[in-house]
Amino acid sequence: MRRFVIGRGRNFLNRSHQQNLLSSSSSHCQSRFLSSTSVIDSPSSSSMAPTSSPAITVDSLNPKVLKCEYAVRGEIVSIAQRLQQELQTNPGSHSFDEILYCNIGNPQSLGQQPITFFREVLALCDHPSILDRSETQGLFSADSIERAWQILDQIPGRATGAYSHSQGIKGLRDTIAAGIEARDGFPADPNDIFLTDGASPAVHMMMQLLIRSENDGILCPIPQYPLYSASIALHGGTLVPYYLDEATGWGLETSEVKKQLEAAKAKGITVRALVVINPGNPTGQVLAEENQRAIVDFCKKEGLVLLADEVYQENVYVPEKKFHSFKKVSRSMGYGEKDISLVSFQSVSKGYYGECGKRGGYMEVTGFSAEVREQIYKVASVNLCSNISGQILASLVMSPPKVGDESYESYCAERDGILSSLARRAKTLEDAFNSLEGITCNKAEGAMYLFPRIQLPEKAIKAAEAEKTVPDAFYCRRLLNATGIVLVPGSGFGQVPGTWHFRCTILPQEDKIPAIVTRLTDFHKNFMDKFRN
Amino acid sequence: MRRFVIGRGRNFLNRSHQQNLLSSSSSHCQSRFLSSTSVIDSPSSSSMAPTSSPAITVDSLNPKVLKCEYAVRGEIVSIAQRLQQELQTNPGSHSFDEILYCNIGNPQSLGQQPITFFREVLALCDHPSILDRSETQGLFSADSIERAWQILDQIPGRATGAYSHSQGIKGLRDTIAAGIEARDGFPADPNDIFLTDGASPAVHMMMQLLIRSENDGILCPIPQYPLYSASIALHGGTLVPYYLDEATGWGLETSEVKKQLEAAKAKGITVRALVVINPGNPTGQVLAEENQRAIVDFCKKEGLVLLADEVYQENVYVPEKKFHSFKKVSRSMGYGEKDISLVSFQSVSKGYYGECGKRGGYMEVTGFSAEVREQIYKVASVNLCSNISGQILASLVMSPPKVGDESYESYCAERDGILSSLARRAKTLEDAFNSLEGITCNKAEGAMYLFPRIQLPEKAIKAAEAEKTVPDAFYCRRLLNATGIVLVPGSGFGQVPGTWHFRCTILPQEDKIPAIVTRLTDFHKNFMDKFRN
Repeated sequence: MRRFVIGRGRNFLNRSHQQNLLSSSSSHCQSRFLSSTSVIDSPSSSSMAPTSSPAITVDSLNPKVLKCEYAVRGEIVSIAQRLQQELQTNPGSHSFDEILYCNIGNPQSLGQQPITFFREVLALCDHPSILDRSETQGLFSADSIERAWQILDQIPGRATGAYSHSQGIKGLRDTIAAGIEARDGFPADPNDIFLTDGASPAVHMMMQLLIRSENDGILCPIPQYPLYSASIALHGGTLVPYYLDEATGWGLETSEVKKQLEAAKAKGITVRALVVINPGNPTGQVLAEENQRAIVDFCKKEGLVLLADEVYQENVYVPEKKFHSFKKVSRSMGYGEKDISLVSFQSVSKGYYGECGKRGGYMEVTGFSAEVREQIYKVASVNLCSNISGQILASLVMSPPKVGDESYESYCAERDGILSSLARRAKTLEDAFNSLEGITCNKAEGAMYLFPRIQLPEKAIKAAEAEKTVPDAFYCRRLLNATGIVLVPGSGFGQVPGTWHFRCTILPQEDKIPAIVTRLTDFHKNFMDKFRN
Repeated sequence: MRRFVIGRGRNFLNRSHQQNLLSSSSSHCQSRFLSSTSVIDSPSSSSMAPTSSPAITVDSLNPKVLKCEYAVRGEIVSIAQRLQQELQTNPGSHSFDEILYCNIGNPQSLGQQPITFFREVLALCDHPSILDRSETQGLFSADSIERAWQILDQIPGRATGAYSHSQGIKGLRDTIAAGIEARDGFPADPNDIFLTDGASPAVHMMMQLLIRSENDGILCPIPQYPLYSASIALHGGTLVPYYLDEATGWGLETSEVKKQLEAAKAKGITVRALVVINPGNPTGQVLAEENQRAIVDFCKKEGLVLLADEVYQENVYVPEKKFHSFKKVSRSMGYGEKDISLVSFQSVSKGYYGECGKRGGYMEVTGFSAEVREQIYKVASVNLCSNISGQILASLVMSPPKVGDESYESYCAERDGILSSLARRAKTLEDAFNSLEGITCNKAEGAMYLFPRIQLPEKAIKAAEAEKTVPDAFYCRRLLNATGIVLVPGSGFGQVPGTWHFRCTILPQEDKIPAIVTRLTDFHKNFMDKFRN
């Protein structure tokens, strides 16, 4: 028996989704997160008619999978892919000549170049038999050759094609721990490091360990990166939302977190962990150290695991803010292993390196008992190990060239060029958004995103409703069809009900930014002219 | 409240494990699989005392995780790692000078060299800026340079550091589909290919989709590769065992599968899928085509998804057997998309390439409705994409150098050298096992393993019981401590109760095989002298 008919599929998903989110008792929270669910009509819904399915129908699949949504690769991206194909097969078929992907934090897809030193080392580790050849000296920097030897010597049998220890190669974990120590000024233990295929699998691993049923809750910021809502849904838990305060630059108030925790408890939810994304995704704020201290104290007092998404730790663009890891903050407060359970996620996909396709990352796991760590190790073991190139890259980003190394100057120039350009792009786009009628945009202090708020006219909201579309998705879809610019509707991340946003990356190359601003401005003016109240 | 006391932890796990396995109504099956659970005393059980755990205790973790076991990286491996450390820090501390890992299918960790052409292409794709340099011509084969260019041209913006399409780079999927067509003689569609970080995540993905609760069952061979039992446990389903027949060379009888299916149904289990591992792991048999046809018909008739683990497709060592993919077999029977739901798993970790650390692989998904495929795509999207080097390698193993390419001869020599050596090693070890008192060993027709049966004397079984150890683990532990040889006890894979086995890979380099045989033979003689009835 099919549980939903064609065209209602997504509504069904939304309803289920909704059931598994905590409905807070506070007046505006009941439906707050609901606005984050999308009711976009799928362009492929016509293909949703049941074709032959000998063994399995969609309604017989795991309902947790059906419930899960992942906005970053949702509807709008499908339209963009279709438009791109149309542009390829039929140039001139649209009023724009390329798709401008501002939807996903994927720097190298938009022309950002990898750091040369990192790629030299990866290439040499992939094909070590050239290390001894004279031609190699001419092709590769001396320190990349030296580093490749160092790394190979840390790998048993120099076998970069072998499964490693389930936590990752010990020597690379030593390097990463040393990098954390250098960053924080507090000790780090290589046995606390679990190397993973990017940060996403690490987050899934922790959710898998912590969530027993829908009665287990995870406190997540709203707006949030949809990995969290997706992972909580897949593991059958309940997302307990806490709201970032847009008026104070997406401030994180522990009083709000406390209120939501109490509301969750009152509903019988056991809250197990607090997710903090710093610098923020999609919101771009960088937490102040005193704010972080309050969060650490809160988690300690409430017995919550602190899941610290710190993948944007290198992406800070304003002089008045600085990244501090939660590990450093908690240690500087005098808290150790016995005081707080903390997992910090890091990735090779972000920062100035932007190596998304390499799928490298790690989590640093502190403040858990030996028994619990054994279970984390077991879960890591079931997938054997993360990919070795990603492991090597994770060690490189935590231990880049140093003063005196042959590559040091070129490395610094590449790194600083990327980061200063990102800062300029962030500022230009922020200013552009703030110049548009009905749009306000907080500063991108860090990360790779702006999350502007748009006051949509009543007429636009009605038009969206008539198309059975969420208003922010309505705006983004029209923008895409008119300009080729791809944004993600705010409803994919969660937002205060009745408010509308979208996420825009700061990643298009600088020479494309003026065109984006012009196209966006023109579109927005036309949109407002058409729908202005 | 702690649910178990120190020292009883593993027993608790076993009891839970046991509860979630289907107890077949047939007389010998009730407890058959139970013998697969391990009651090895952890060497680290003394460290299991509750240390400080501010937020999380082990009994508050997801019980599905606690239940999961993964024998391949279990107890024996921990002991081996400890012994290896002791040998390093204190050479001469044991009667052997190295640990001989025969426990895991990790060829390059034992000295197998990667295929040069594959590594050349990977290195060039990692650092494409050397492609135009003259020194590169001297260092790399002409066809590796050409192939790297081809691959880069298939990647949007030549960005090997960008997230790809969630199913993997389209051009690489085209290459893989062409490789499948060439192998099978039937069409393959690149849109059916999902590139993954090895086969394990692909298996998890399918289990996640298919399993709703403990009332959903997955038919698995016993003995089985413990990825399956672990994944089913993690996703909360029920493993429905069917037994391979040791007497007929680990034959797979559909009558046995049918019997177990009916028994499961009678207990209210909805059986969703049948796992077949061909060539077999840990059993090493290669299925006959007529046997495969019967399995296809069975799945079609019963409406089961056929999950075909075909990662050892290149590893066939006997002239009388040949690998046939289940896709080819089902298409040759005239069955198409509408007749059977089939998922075939392939990996870069096995074959003659053995690139475990690269974490590459794919699944070919056929016979599912558009709606179900959309859900598979969504689950793939939540982790963004698999690593690009692994994706490239997956395309290379499905499209190696061809006649006329510069690398063709050296490639063939490397490939054939590895495969013929594996065949010799399999035969030597098989003969050695069969020469030992109380041990019988089927032929390794394929894969990378032997799974000999050992008739343990009553006195040894009693001694194991006195040590609260499963008898096969008792044997393997003593062997390891005496010789440094690491095997995996059969109980980690499942076996008919009262029978004992161990898994031994055929992967140690050929020059080490005589020493292994000697050490094993000496140990076994001493063991039997000590425990003979």
